[in-house]
Amino acid sequence: MNNWEKNLIQIDPYVPGDQPSFPDMIKLNTNENPYPPAPGVEKALKAFDADTLRLYPAVSAEPVLLALSEFYGIETDRIFAGVGSDDVLATAFRALFNSDKPVLFPDITYSFYDVWAKLFGVPFEQIPLDADFRMHKEDYVRENGGVIICNPNAPTSIAEPLEFVEFIVKNNPDSVVVVDEAYVDFGAETALPLLDKYENLLVVQTFSKSRSLAGLRIGYAFGSRRLIRALNDVKNSYNSYTINRLSAAVGPAAIEDREYFERTCERIIRTRENSAKELKKLGFRVNDSSTNFLFATHPEVPAERIFTELKERHIFVRWFNKPRLKDYLRITVGTDEQMEKLLCALYEIINT
Amino acid sequence: MNNWEKNLIQIDPYVPGDQPSFPDMIKLNTNENPYPPAPGVEKALKAFDADTLRLYPAVSAEPVLLALSEFYGIETDRIFAGVGSDDVLATAFRALFNSDKPVLFPDITYSFYDVWAKLFGVPFEQIPLDADFRMHKEDYVRENGGVIICNPNAPTSIAEPLEFVEFIVKNNPDSVVVVDEAYVDFGAETALPLLDKYENLLVVQTFSKSRSLAGLRIGYAFGSRRLIRALNDVKNSYNSYTINRLSAAVGPAAIEDREYFERTCERIIRTRENSAKELKKLGFRVNDSSTNFLFATHPEVPAERIFTELKERHIFVRWFNKPRLKDYLRITVGTDEQMEKLLCALYEIINT
Repeated sequence: MNNWEKNLIQIDPYVPGDQPSFPDMIKLNTNENPYPPAPGVEKALKAFDADTLRLYPAVSAEPVLLALSEFYGIETDRIFAGVGSDDVLATAFRALFNSDKPVLFPDITYSFYDVWAKLFGVPFEQIPLDADFRMHKEDYVRENGGVIICNPNAPTSIAEPLEFVEFIVKNNPDSVVVVDEAYVDFGAETALPLLDKYENLLVVQTFSKSRSLAGLRIGYAFGSRRLIRALNDVKNSYNSYTINRLSAAVGPAAIEDREYFERTCERIIRTRENSAKELKKLGFRVNDSSTNFLFATHPEVPAERIFTELKERHIFVRWFNKPRLKDYLRITVGTDEQMEKLLCALYEIINT
Repeated sequence: MNNWEKNLIQIDPYVPGDQPSFPDMIKLNTNENPYPPAPGVEKALKAFDADTLRLYPAVSAEPVLLALSEFYGIETDRIFAGVGSDDVLATAFRALFNSDKPVLFPDITYSFYDVWAKLFGVPFEQIPLDADFRMHKEDYVRENGGVIICNPNAPTSIAEPLEFVEFIVKNNPDSVVVVDEAYVDFGAETALPLLDKYENLLVVQTFSKSRSLAGLRIGYAFGSRRLIRALNDVKNSYNSYTINRLSAAVGPAAIEDREYFERTCERIIRTRENSAKELKKLGFRVNDSSTNFLFATHPEVPAERIFTELKERHIFVRWFNKPRLKDYLRITVGTDEQMEKLLCALYEIINT
């Protein structure tokens, strides 16, 4: 090893999911929306003046904040936007979790939480979900330097009701509680109504799932002015201009079209419920999902085998090679047609 | 103060420059390119299929890496891309400067360096430029945990030759040397030829200045595979998908069009040299510039007064209210027409 190499960071990075690209593939592995973004997105894109790209974007990504403010009825100075909810959540770890006490989150949840804690040197404690993959709210009332829960949780797909979240926020007056609602629009209760009661609550959402804009990289958070200011202080100490001019010009169209948004979410929910029913007919045990994916296990056929055999057919789902997860598959809800092909393939795999 | 507020970060954030927007303004305050991006950018934008925005981008921003690889003749695994060079440089501070010894950089340079050092808890030492705003290479040969220099330097506009940079790299075999070349295409020597000799050298450039794409947010770095891996480890521990699908689709066009790039840079250099001559006629002292801006002082008229009176005329330049800089103005090189208007206004201000 050269001497200069001793100054390089030593860290186990997060390993993002496979991004295969075959023309005939069915991609159900990264919880993308099977439907295109609202038609206004394409219109905004075509109307965009490429010459303006020579100028820096606005620091605040104002058009995005205004669209969110209008849709959710929350003032722009209580909204923070970032390069996907990963950027928002990472910024939250840095800005809001500065304590010697551990930050609490479940052992099975979005796998970036412990990566960020390690990157920023934030102490943390992972609280085991029960055998049914459920959180218990009392587990999150103990000495801590912050709490983060994903609701609905990933990859379990299970949502907890609003009173569950309120119990945790109310009983943690001395720390910040972050609720990661990446999947909330697919049938769960949002914690937004709690914002007026609790200044220590941050609610994080994203354009990547229900708004069909994973490729645009916009995430956002709602919270008290004090929390939003702390997030902006970190952002402005790192990179002032994060949301680029194209995202700022094109993203708002996905928020403004309420009817398209609601219709798309309903469609995905319907497909999800039908697919869950069919999976159960094939012998799978399937969690009740409030997300755009299903978390399923088959009592007889190993998940790894199903995962591999689907892959051979160019059908991609997610399998986690981790102790409590390795019997399960996480299957993104695609179109009805895609799910039919998946179910056919599963039928073949299970019966051979 | 509420108890939960004690967990929030305490930091003085970087304050980005004003982004005024008046229809008639002349904006010479943030070193943007006065010319639009290469025509291929608009073509790529119009050809982009908005429906694909439902999918995540590739983790590696591959099209961007391929275009850079082709243009500069450097393999893709020796290139790192981020959301503007701010993202790249911030990532470099985190990934490459992990030592108890101070990172060295000039006292007058890009004002983000000390902000990042403070954000990441990196010890640092700021080495004074001399009275002519010059660096001395011997100053950067002392015990350190890394070196970062901006060449040409900002806001001084002065470039040092290749042998100056090589002296610093060669005499620092135990630490990483980062050369921030945001402005290099406007007439300075790049350190790229040193890459094959020194594995501890990172060269950072950007699409924001010479490529007319400040609004797209793409920066990049060239270095040894070991350095690029460390940068990717940090990136993948923070946010896997940073360069969005639109940037990845549209950005390469600005790299591929070598002729447009060279023509635009030459044009800006010509305007810069003419403007410098005219400024001198008005009594300004002007540094020799190898950038797309001029750093100038007037022996009789205070810079703050000029700055303010230009602003009243909707002509925006940059003035830094800092001890060694407050007598100077940083003036971005605009079009010939814009510079004429600026010079007229300066003539009036100075002679009244």
